[in-house]
Amino acid sequence: MDERLRKQLVFSLEIDKEKNIFRQTHLSGHGRNENDAEHAWHMALMAYLLREYANEEVDITRVMLMCLIHDIVEIDAGDTYAYDEEELKTQKAREEAAKERIFSMLPKDQKEEFTALFDEFEEYETADSKFAHAMDNFQPLILNNSNEGGDWKEHGVTAKTVYSRQNKTRLGSEKLFEVTDRILKENIRKGSLPEEKPTE
Amino acid sequence: MDERLRKQLVFSLEIDKEKNIFRQTHLSGHGRNENDAEHAWHMALMAYLLREYANEEVDITRVMLMCLIHDIVEIDAGDTYAYDEEELKTQKAREEAAKERIFSMLPKDQKEEFTALFDEFEEYETADSKFAHAMDNFQPLILNNSNEGGDWKEHGVTAKTVYSRQNKTRLGSEKLFEVTDRILKENIRKGSLPEEKPTE
Repeated sequence: MDERLRKQLVFSLEIDKEKNIFRQTHLSGHGRNENDAEHAWHMALMAYLLREYANEEVDITRVMLMCLIHDIVEIDAGDTYAYDEEELKTQKAREEAAKERIFSMLPKDQKEEFTALFDEFEEYETADSKFAHAMDNFQPLILNNSNEGGDWKEHGVTAKTVYSRQNKTRLGSEKLFEVTDRILKENIRKGSLPEEKPTE
Repeated sequence: MDERLRKQLVFSLEIDKEKNIFRQTHLSGHGRNENDAEHAWHMALMAYLLREYANEEVDITRVMLMCLIHDIVEIDAGDTYAYDEEELKTQKAREEAAKERIFSMLPKDQKEEFTALFDEFEEYETADSKFAHAMDNFQPLILNNSNEGGDWKEHGVTAKTVYSRQNKTRLGSEKLFEVTDRILKENIRKGSLPEEKPTE
Protein backbone atom coordinates (compact mmCIF):
# COMPACT_ATOMS: atom_id res chain seq x y z
CA MET A 1 0.00 0.00 0.00
CA ASP A 2 1.36 3.42 -0.78
CA GLU A 3 2.44 5.65 2.07
CA ARG A 4 -0.22 8.29 1.47
CA LEU A 5 -3.11 5.84 1.74
CA ARG A 6 -1.49 4.05 4.67
CA LYS A 7 -1.34 7.36 6.58
CA GLN A 8 -4.95 8.18 5.75
CA LEU A 9 -6.06 4.81 7.10
CA VAL A 10 -4.01 5.10 10.28
CA PHE A 11 -5.62 8.49 10.93
CA SER A 12 -9.08 7.11 10.10
CA LEU A 13 -8.64 4.43 12.73
CA GLU A 14 -7.14 6.83 15.28
CA ILE A 15 -10.15 9.15 15.24
CA ASP A 16 -12.36 6.24 16.25
CA LYS A 17 -11.16 7.09 19.78
CA GLU A 18 -13.24 10.28 19.70
CA LYS A 19 -16.26 8.06 20.42
CA ASN A 20 -14.83 7.44 23.89
CA ILE A 21 -14.59 11.11 24.86
CA PHE A 22 -17.69 11.92 26.86
CA ARG A 23 -19.12 15.38 27.34
CA GLN A 24 -21.14 16.90 30.15
CA THR A 25 -24.22 17.13 27.96
CA HIS A 26 -26.80 14.34 28.27
CA LEU A 27 -28.85 12.87 25.45
CA SER A 28 -32.51 13.83 25.23
CA GLY A 29 -34.90 11.74 27.29
CA HIS A 30 -32.54 12.12 30.29
CA GLY A 31 -30.15 9.76 28.57
CA ARG A 32 -26.48 9.04 29.13
CA ASN A 33 -23.68 11.53 28.52
CA GLU A 34 -23.07 12.38 24.89
CA ASN A 35 -19.70 11.73 23.29
CA ASP A 36 -17.71 13.98 20.99
CA ALA A 37 -18.36 12.01 17.79
CA GLU A 38 -22.13 12.12 18.32
CA HIS A 39 -21.96 15.81 19.13
CA ALA A 40 -19.96 16.49 15.96
CA TRP A 41 -22.40 14.50 13.80
CA HIS A 42 -25.36 16.35 15.29
CA MET A 43 -23.72 19.77 14.87
CA ALA A 44 -22.79 19.10 11.23
CA LEU A 45 -26.33 18.08 10.33
CA MET A 46 -27.84 21.01 12.22
CA ALA A 47 -25.42 23.38 10.46
CA TYR A 48 -26.69 22.15 7.12
CA LEU A 49 -30.36 22.30 8.12
CA LEU A 50 -30.12 25.75 9.70
CA ARG A 51 -27.63 27.39 7.33
CA GLU A 52 -30.28 29.86 6.14
CA TYR A 53 -30.00 31.55 9.55
CA ALA A 54 -26.28 32.35 9.33
CA ASN A 55 -25.71 36.12 9.55
CA GLU A 56 -23.34 36.06 6.61
CA GLU A 57 -23.06 33.76 3.64
CA VAL A 58 -21.21 30.61 4.65
CA ASP A 59 -19.46 27.82 2.77
CA ILE A 60 -21.52 25.03 4.26
CA THR A 61 -19.01 22.31 3.34
CA ARG A 62 -16.31 24.08 5.34
CA VAL A 63 -18.71 24.69 8.23
CA MET A 64 -19.66 21.00 8.30
CA LEU A 65 -16.01 19.98 8.21
CA MET A 66 -15.23 22.30 11.12
CA CYS A 67 -18.09 20.72 13.03
CA LEU A 68 -16.86 17.21 12.21
CA ILE A 69 -13.22 17.78 13.18
CA HIS A 70 -13.29 20.43 15.93
CA ASP A 71 -13.16 17.94 18.81
CA ILE A 72 -10.60 15.47 17.43
CA VAL A 73 -7.98 17.09 19.67
CA GLU A 74 -9.98 15.94 22.69
CA ILE A 75 -8.81 12.37 22.01
CA ASP A 76 -5.64 13.49 23.83
CA ALA A 77 -6.76 16.67 25.58
CA GLY A 78 -10.05 15.39 26.98
CA ASP A 79 -13.33 17.25 27.08
CA THR A 80 -13.20 20.61 28.83
CA TYR A 81 -16.59 21.60 30.23
CA ALA A 82 -17.56 24.98 28.85
CA TYR A 83 -18.13 26.36 32.34
CA ASP A 84 -15.12 24.84 34.18
CA GLU A 85 -12.83 27.79 34.84
CA GLU A 86 -9.80 25.80 36.05
CA GLU A 87 -9.77 23.40 33.11
CA LEU A 88 -10.27 26.24 30.66
CA LYS A 89 -6.91 27.75 31.70
CA THR A 90 -4.90 24.79 30.38
CA GLN A 91 -7.21 23.85 27.50
CA LYS A 92 -5.31 25.72 24.80
CA ALA A 93 -1.93 24.11 25.54
CA ARG A 94 -3.41 20.61 25.81
CA GLU A 95 -5.27 20.99 22.53
CA GLU A 96 -2.30 22.41 20.65
CA ALA A 97 -0.17 19.38 21.55
CA ALA A 98 -2.99 17.04 20.56
CA LYS A 99 -3.50 18.82 17.26
CA GLU A 100 0.16 18.38 16.39
CA ARG A 101 0.26 14.69 17.30
CA ILE A 102 -3.00 13.61 15.71
CA PHE A 103 -3.04 15.68 12.52
CA SER A 104 0.61 14.69 11.88
CA MET A 105 -0.66 11.20 11.15
CA LEU A 106 -2.14 12.55 7.90
CA PRO A 107 -0.27 13.18 4.64
CA LYS A 108 1.28 16.65 4.74
CA ASP A 109 -1.35 18.43 2.61
CA GLN A 110 -4.21 17.02 4.65
CA LYS A 111 -2.43 17.77 7.93
CA GLU A 112 -2.12 21.37 6.79
CA GLU A 113 -5.74 21.55 5.67
CA PHE A 114 -7.15 20.11 8.92
CA THR A 115 -4.82 22.22 11.06
CA ALA A 116 -5.90 25.35 9.22
CA LEU A 117 -9.59 24.46 9.58
CA PHE A 118 -9.18 23.75 13.29
CA ASP A 119 -7.26 27.00 13.82
CA GLU A 120 -9.86 28.96 11.90
CA PHE A 121 -12.58 27.47 14.10
CA GLU A 122 -10.65 28.34 17.25
CA GLU A 123 -9.91 31.90 16.11
CA TYR A 124 -13.65 32.65 15.80
CA GLU A 125 -13.18 35.33 13.17
CA THR A 126 -14.54 34.11 9.84
CA ALA A 127 -18.21 33.72 8.94
CA ASP A 128 -17.77 29.95 8.66
CA SER A 129 -16.20 29.59 12.09
CA LYS A 130 -18.77 31.86 13.74
CA PHE A 131 -21.60 29.76 12.38
CA ALA A 132 -19.85 26.51 13.36
CA HIS A 133 -19.45 27.91 16.89
CA ALA A 134 -23.14 28.83 16.93
CA MET A 135 -23.82 25.12 16.38
CA ASP A 136 -21.33 24.17 19.09
CA ASN A 137 -23.42 26.26 21.50
CA PHE A 138 -26.87 25.58 20.13
CA GLN A 139 -26.72 21.78 19.78
CA PRO A 140 -26.05 21.06 23.49
CA LEU A 141 -28.55 23.81 24.39
CA ILE A 142 -31.45 22.05 22.72
CA LEU A 143 -30.50 18.75 24.39
CA ASN A 144 -30.15 20.33 27.81
CA ASN A 145 -33.39 22.28 27.36
CA SER A 146 -35.18 19.02 26.51
CA ASN A 147 -33.86 17.64 29.82
CA GLU A 148 -35.10 20.60 31.90
CA GLY A 149 -31.61 22.06 32.23
CA GLY A 150 -30.22 19.05 34.06
CA ASP A 151 -26.64 19.73 32.92
CA TRP A 152 -26.67 23.24 34.35
CA LYS A 153 -28.12 22.03 37.64
CA GLU A 154 -25.54 19.26 37.92
CA HIS A 155 -22.71 21.77 37.61
CA GLY A 156 -24.34 24.61 39.52
CA VAL A 157 -23.78 27.13 36.75
CA THR A 158 -25.67 30.41 36.71
CA ALA A 159 -27.46 32.25 33.95
CA LYS A 160 -24.67 34.81 33.84
CA THR A 161 -22.05 32.15 33.07
CA VAL A 162 -24.24 30.45 30.48
CA TYR A 163 -24.99 33.74 28.77
CA SER A 164 -21.28 34.63 28.65
CA ARG A 165 -20.83 31.72 26.25
CA GLN A 166 -24.21 31.61 24.55
CA ASN A 167 -24.14 35.34 23.76
CA LYS A 168 -21.52 34.52 21.13
CA THR A 169 -24.08 32.57 19.14
CA ARG A 170 -25.21 36.02 18.03
CA LEU A 171 -21.91 36.41 16.11
CA GLY A 172 -22.90 33.51 13.87
CA SER A 173 -26.67 33.80 13.85
CA GLU A 174 -28.84 36.56 15.26
CA LYS A 175 -31.89 34.41 14.58
CA LEU A 176 -30.61 31.39 16.51
CA PHE A 177 -29.51 33.69 19.32
CA GLU A 178 -33.11 34.91 19.59
CA VAL A 179 -34.15 31.28 20.11
CA THR A 180 -31.28 30.76 22.56
CA ASP A 181 -32.34 33.80 24.55
CA ARG A 182 -35.92 32.62 24.68
CA ILE A 183 -34.83 29.15 25.84
CA LEU A 184 -32.56 30.57 28.54
CA LYS A 185 -35.22 33.01 29.82
CA GLU A 186 -37.74 30.18 29.97
CA ASN A 187 -35.31 28.02 31.97
CA ILE A 188 -34.61 30.90 34.35
CA ARG A 189 -38.34 31.43 34.81
CA LYS A 190 -38.88 27.74 35.57
CA GLY A 191 -35.96 27.67 38.02
CA SER A 192 -33.85 25.32 35.88
CA LEU A 193 -31.15 27.94 35.47
CA PRO A 194 -30.54 30.05 38.59
CA GLU A 195 -29.63 33.69 38.16
CA GLU A 196 -27.29 33.59 41.18
CA LYS A 197 -25.21 30.87 42.82
CA PRO A 198 -27.15 29.42 45.75
CA THR A 199 -25.72 30.53 49.10
CA GLU A 200 -23.98 27.61 50.81
CA MET B 1 -41.20 31.31 16.57
CA ASP B 2 -42.09 30.84 12.95
CA GLU B 3 -43.35 27.47 11.80
CA ARG B 4 -40.39 26.73 9.54
CA LEU B 5 -37.82 27.16 12.30
CA ARG B 6 -40.02 25.32 14.79
CA LYS B 7 -40.11 22.30 12.47
CA GLN B 8 -36.37 22.40 11.92
CA LEU B 9 -35.79 22.38 15.67
CA VAL B 10 -38.25 19.54 16.31
CA PHE B 11 -36.43 17.49 13.68
CA SER B 12 -33.03 18.44 15.13
CA LEU B 13 -34.10 17.12 18.51
CA GLU B 14 -35.72 13.99 17.05
CA ILE B 15 -32.53 12.84 15.35
CA ASP B 16 -30.76 12.83 18.72
CA LYS B 17 -32.37 9.38 19.07
CA GLU B 18 -30.01 8.01 16.42
CA LYS B 19 -27.35 7.92 19.16
CA ASN B 20 -29.32 5.12 20.82
CA ILE B 21 -29.35 2.85 17.77
CA PHE B 22 -26.51 0.39 18.24
CA ARG B 23 -24.84 -1.53 15.45
CA GLN B 24 -23.10 -4.90 15.40
CA THR B 25 -19.72 -3.27 14.82
CA HIS B 26 -17.51 -2.72 17.85
CA LEU B 27 -15.23 0.25 18.44
CA SER B 28 -11.50 -0.29 17.99
CA GLY B 29 -9.64 -1.60 21.04
CA HIS B 30 -12.35 -4.27 21.47
CA GLY B 31 -14.69 -1.54 22.65
CA ARG B 32 -18.45 -1.41 22.99
CA ASN B 33 -20.88 -1.56 20.08
CA GLU B 34 -20.88 1.49 17.85
CA ASN B 35 -24.03 3.54 17.37
CA ASP B 36 -25.43 4.97 14.16
CA ALA B 37 -24.53 8.61 14.87
CA GLU B 38 -20.89 7.71 15.51
CA HIS B 39 -20.82 5.55 12.40
CA ALA B 40 -22.26 8.38 10.30
CA TRP B 41 -19.74 10.90 11.67
CA HIS B 42 -16.87 8.52 10.97
CA MET B 43 -18.09 7.73 7.43
CA ALA B 44 -18.54 11.41 6.55
CA LEU B 45 -15.03 12.30 7.66
CA MET B 46 -13.53 9.28 5.90
CA ALA B 47 -15.42 10.21 2.73
CA TYR B 48 -13.81 13.62 2.79
CA LEU B 49 -10.33 12.29 3.55
CA LEU B 50 -10.48 9.53 0.96
CA ARG B 51 -12.40 11.30 -1.80
CA GLU B 52 -9.39 11.17 -4.12
CA TYR B 53 -10.00 7.41 -4.45
CA ALA B 54 -13.55 7.67 -5.81
CA ASN B 55 -13.78 6.07 -9.26
CA GLU B 56 -15.70 9.01 -10.66
CA GLU B 57 -15.75 12.64 -9.69
CA VAL B 58 -18.04 13.13 -6.70
CA ASP B 59 -19.74 16.12 -5.08
CA ILE B 60 -18.20 15.61 -1.67
CA THR B 61 -20.80 17.76 0.13
CA ARG B 62 -23.58 15.52 -1.15
CA VAL B 63 -21.58 12.40 -0.28
CA MET B 64 -21.01 13.67 3.26
CA LEU B 65 -24.70 14.51 3.63
CA MET B 66 -25.67 11.01 2.49
CA CYS B 67 -23.28 9.59 5.07
CA LEU B 68 -24.70 11.84 7.79
CA ILE B 69 -28.38 11.07 7.11
CA HIS B 70 -28.44 7.52 5.73
CA ASP B 71 -29.22 5.86 9.06
CA ILE B 72 -31.78 8.33 10.44
CA VAL B 73 -34.53 5.90 9.41
CA GLU B 74 -33.10 3.40 11.88
CA ILE B 75 -34.51 5.51 14.72
CA ASP B 76 -37.78 3.70 13.91
CA ALA B 77 -36.62 0.76 11.82
CA GLY B 78 -33.69 -0.33 13.99
CA ASP B 79 -30.30 -1.46 12.79
CA THR B 80 -30.35 -4.34 10.35
CA TYR B 81 -27.14 -6.35 10.46
CA ALA B 82 -25.64 -6.48 6.99
CA TYR B 83 -25.46 -10.28 7.10
CA ASP B 84 -28.82 -11.08 8.76
CA GLU B 85 -30.89 -12.62 5.96
CA GLU B 86 -34.23 -12.65 7.81
CA GLU B 87 -34.05 -9.04 8.89
CA LEU B 88 -32.93 -7.94 5.45
CA LYS B 89 -36.24 -9.17 3.95
CA THR B 90 -38.30 -6.61 5.88
CA GLN B 91 -35.73 -3.82 6.01
CA LYS B 92 -37.03 -1.88 3.02
CA ALA B 93 -40.62 -1.61 4.28
CA ARG B 94 -39.55 -0.66 7.79
CA GLU B 95 -37.23 2.02 6.50
CA GLU B 96 -39.75 3.48 4.07
CA ALA B 97 -42.26 4.05 6.87
CA ALA B 98 -39.58 5.58 9.05
CA LYS B 99 -38.43 7.88 6.28
CA GLU B 100 -41.96 9.19 5.83
CA ARG B 101 -42.54 9.79 9.54
CA ILE B 102 -39.21 11.35 10.39
CA PHE B 103 -38.52 13.48 7.31
CA SER B 104 -42.10 14.80 7.45
CA MET B 105 -41.08 16.71 10.56
CA LEU B 106 -39.02 19.01 8.33
CA PRO B 107 -40.33 21.93 6.25
CA LYS B 108 -41.53 20.62 2.89
CA ASP B 109 -38.47 21.63 0.84
CA GLN B 110 -36.08 20.04 3.31
CA LYS B 111 -38.24 16.94 3.59
CA GLU B 112 -38.02 16.60 -0.18
CA GLU B 113 -34.29 17.21 -0.22
CA PHE B 114 -33.52 14.66 2.50
CA THR B 115 -35.91 12.09 1.03
CA ALA B 116 -34.26 12.46 -2.37
CA LEU B 117 -30.78 12.13 -0.88
CA PHE B 118 -31.79 9.05 1.10
CA ASP B 119 -33.45 7.48 -1.96
CA GLU B 120 -30.42 8.23 -4.10
CA PHE B 121 -28.20 6.53 -1.53
CA GLU B 122 -30.48 3.49 -1.42
CA GLU B 123 -30.69 3.22 -5.22
CA TYR B 124 -26.90 2.86 -5.46
CA GLU B 125 -26.71 4.28 -8.97
CA THR B 126 -25.01 7.66 -8.91
CA ALA B 127 -21.30 8.27 -8.37
CA ASP B 128 -22.06 10.06 -5.08
CA SER B 129 -24.14 7.20 -3.70
CA LYS B 130 -21.63 4.55 -4.79
CA PHE B 131 -18.85 6.35 -2.97
CA ALA B 132 -21.03 6.89 0.12
CA HIS B 133 -21.80 3.14 0.11
CA ALA B 134 -18.08 2.39 -0.19
CA MET B 135 -17.70 4.27 3.10
CA ASP B 136 -20.64 2.39 4.63
CA ASN B 137 -18.71 -0.83 3.91
CA PHE B 138 -15.18 0.36 4.52
CA GLN B 139 -15.64 2.17 7.85
CA PRO B 140 -16.90 -0.88 9.79
CA LEU B 141 -14.31 -3.02 7.97
CA ILE B 142 -11.37 -1.07 9.39
CA LEU B 143 -12.87 -1.24 12.89
CA ASN B 144 -13.57 -4.96 12.67
CA ASN B 145 -10.13 -5.61 11.19
CA SER B 146 -8.55 -3.74 14.12
CA ASN B 147 -10.46 -6.11 16.42
CA GLU B 148 -9.25 -9.29 14.67
CA GLY B 149 -12.58 -9.81 12.95
CA GLY B 150 -14.51 -10.19 16.20
CA ASP B 151 -17.80 -9.06 14.64
CA TRP B 152 -17.65 -11.74 11.95
CA LYS B 153 -16.81 -14.42 14.50
CA GLU B 154 -19.67 -13.36 16.78
CA HIS B 155 -22.17 -13.77 13.94
CA GLY B 156 -20.55 -16.80 12.29
CA VAL B 157 -20.46 -15.18 8.86
CA THR B 158 -18.27 -16.59 6.13
CA ALA B 159 -15.94 -14.96 3.65
CA LYS B 160 -18.42 -15.58 0.86
CA THR B 161 -21.15 -13.60 2.63
CA VAL B 162 -18.79 -10.78 3.54
CA TYR B 163 -17.48 -10.57 0.00
CA SER B 164 -21.03 -10.42 -1.40
CA ARG B 165 -21.42 -7.06 0.30
CA GLN B 166 -17.85 -5.78 0.27
CA ASN B 167 -17.45 -6.50 -3.46
CA LYS B 168 -19.71 -3.53 -4.09
CA THR B 169 -17.11 -1.19 -2.66
CA ARG B 170 -15.51 -1.61 -6.08
CA LEU B 171 -18.43 0.32 -7.62
CA GLY B 172 -17.42 3.40 -5.66
CA SER B 173 -13.68 2.93 -5.40
CA GLU B 174 -11.47 0.35 -7.08
CA LYS B 175 -8.58 1.53 -4.92
CA LEU B 176 -10.41 1.05 -1.63
CA PHE B 177 -11.69 -2.30 -2.84
CA GLU B 178 -8.05 -3.37 -3.33
CA VAL B 179 -7.45 -2.54 0.34
CA THR B 180 -10.69 -4.31 1.31
CA ASP B 181 -9.64 -7.41 -0.58
CA ARG B 182 -6.24 -7.42 1.07
CA ILE B 183 -7.81 -7.02 4.54
CA LEU B 184 -10.30 -9.84 3.90
CA LYS B 185 -7.63 -12.21 2.54
CA GLU B 186 -5.44 -11.50 5.55
CA ASN B 187 -8.33 -12.27 7.92
CA ILE B 188 -9.09 -15.50 6.06
CA ARG B 189 -5.41 -16.48 6.30
CA LYS B 190 -5.36 -15.78 10.04
CA GLY B 191 -8.57 -17.72 10.61
CA SER B 192 -10.60 -14.65 11.66
CA LEU B 193 -12.94 -15.02 8.70
CA PRO B 194 -13.80 -18.66 7.86
CA GLU B 195 -14.28 -19.60 4.22
CA GLU B 196 -17.04 -22.08 5.10
CA LYS B 197 -19.60 -22.31 7.89
CA PRO B 198 -18.25 -24.62 10.61
CA THR B 199 -20.04 -27.98 10.61
CA GLU B 200 -22.32 -28.25 13.63
